[in-house]
Amino acid sequence: MAGRLYLLPAGLGDSPWQATLPAQARDIACRIDYFIVENAKTARAELKRLEYPRPLREVETAEIPRDPTAADWLRLLQPVLAGRDAALMSEAGCPAVADPGAGLVRAAHGQEIRVVPLVGPSAVLLALMASGLNGQSFAFHGYLPIPETERRERITVLEQQSRRERRTQIFIETPYRNATLLDTLKEACQPATLLCVAAALTTAEEWIATRTIGQWRRAPAPAIARKPALFLLLAE
Amino acid sequence: MAGRLYLLPAGLGDSPWQATLPAQARDIACRIDYFIVENAKTARAELKRLEYPRPLREVETAEIPRDPTAADWLRLLQPVLAGRDAALMSEAGCPAVADPGAGLVRAAHGQEIRVVPLVGPSAVLLALMASGLNGQSFAFHGYLPIPETERRERITVLEQQSRRERRTQIFIETPYRNATLLDTLKEACQPATLLCVAAALTTAEEWIATRTIGQWRRAPAPAIARKPALFLLLAE
Repeated sequence: MAGRLYLLPAGLGDSPWQATLPAQARDIACRIDYFIVENAKTARAELKRLEYPRPLREVETAEIPRDPTAADWLRLLQPVLAGRDAALMSEAGCPAVADPGAGLVRAAHGQEIRVVPLVGPSAVLLALMASGLNGQSFAFHGYLPIPETERRERITVLEQQSRRERRTQIFIETPYRNATLLDTLKEACQPATLLCVAAALTTAEEWIATRTIGQWRRAPAPAIARKPALFLLLAE
Repeated sequence: MAGRLYLLPAGLGDSPWQATLPAQARDIACRIDYFIVENAKTARAELKRLEYPRPLREVETAEIPRDPTAADWLRLLQPVLAGRDAALMSEAGCPAVADPGAGLVRAAHGQEIRVVPLVGPSAVLLALMASGLNGQSFAFHGYLPIPETERRERITVLEQQSRRERRTQIFIETPYRNATLLDTLKEACQPATLLCVAAALTTAEEWIATRTIGQWRRAPAPAIARKPALFLLLAE
């Protein structure tokens, strides 16, 4: 009988596991010794954060290759098909959301392996909850294009679509570009459009504010440089 | 100094709180005695599930009125402005996602009250993780229209948009209509389109499958009647 593929969320920062993971999810992680991960070194650090009870040399961590093929997914799932439970972990937050792990989950369904999602932190979801923007219709878009002209065009399209469909638009940025993205949003959006910036979620430095673009223009720049942040936009 | 507005996720079923809530989130809930809720009776049942340590008669539960106005939100936030911590709870899952609580969170930002989202279960997010569909671009649409013609048109539009933008489309249905919606999806979508059905998440009856529409047509009907379910669609 095949094992199960658990989906194990990883912490978003240096908070203790008791802040971000239910005890039962952590118990399940502690019974598993086969982890499918993006990076073995950071995955082992995450297991330390979980106070994983066994020596880590007894743990197998298999890395997802760059540009994985169907054959790669099947190879990673072989131990599960042979009866061993596995956990898929991401670098931060929920696996298969905004990371390459979804292909593994889909391959598991193809093999009729039971997939069990565990509760844990998702920056996208925490930011949406905390934004106060529309939680009945929302879309996550990942990263915006980097070239300035394309980026502005994309922001304008997202803003227009948000107004038309009353939809919260969610996107992310690499931490060192946060301040620049906020400046572009302040210039490109309408004054009445609502913007939430949610940074360093679940950590001691957590910072969340929702304001109109007009209010953002008048407010002092927030200290979000180099902190993981999400941006949420709702045009009304 | 104002109190904080915590966003406290509620369980999705009858699982123990240790399966769905981190210990620190539960500790925070146990220190709070002012809860802003949709329904006082079910909120009190949820506090029992959390093994809330004090007699529930010492707890204040304020219900969000139907069609709340700005004045209603401000009234609900008065104790917080006066220095008391509060928690917003939904009927199931994360507050302010697919429920009416977002207005309260937005009003809290307007009063510069600190908003603190707590980690907990979200059926939308658990379903997305477990679907294996695209987690780098996704949209949540709530309920589809009920009249059959409008519903089919909407499904076709969502499928076309999914193909064009490689976006996972997520929607929900009231449990007693699950089987009918699945039948409509099987008829209305292309055979190669991927559909995930995720039912009774986090409970002993959890059931999740991702298949092509062609495969769904050939498979026996799943036992999802009267179970809370999400539907996720990806056209490729």
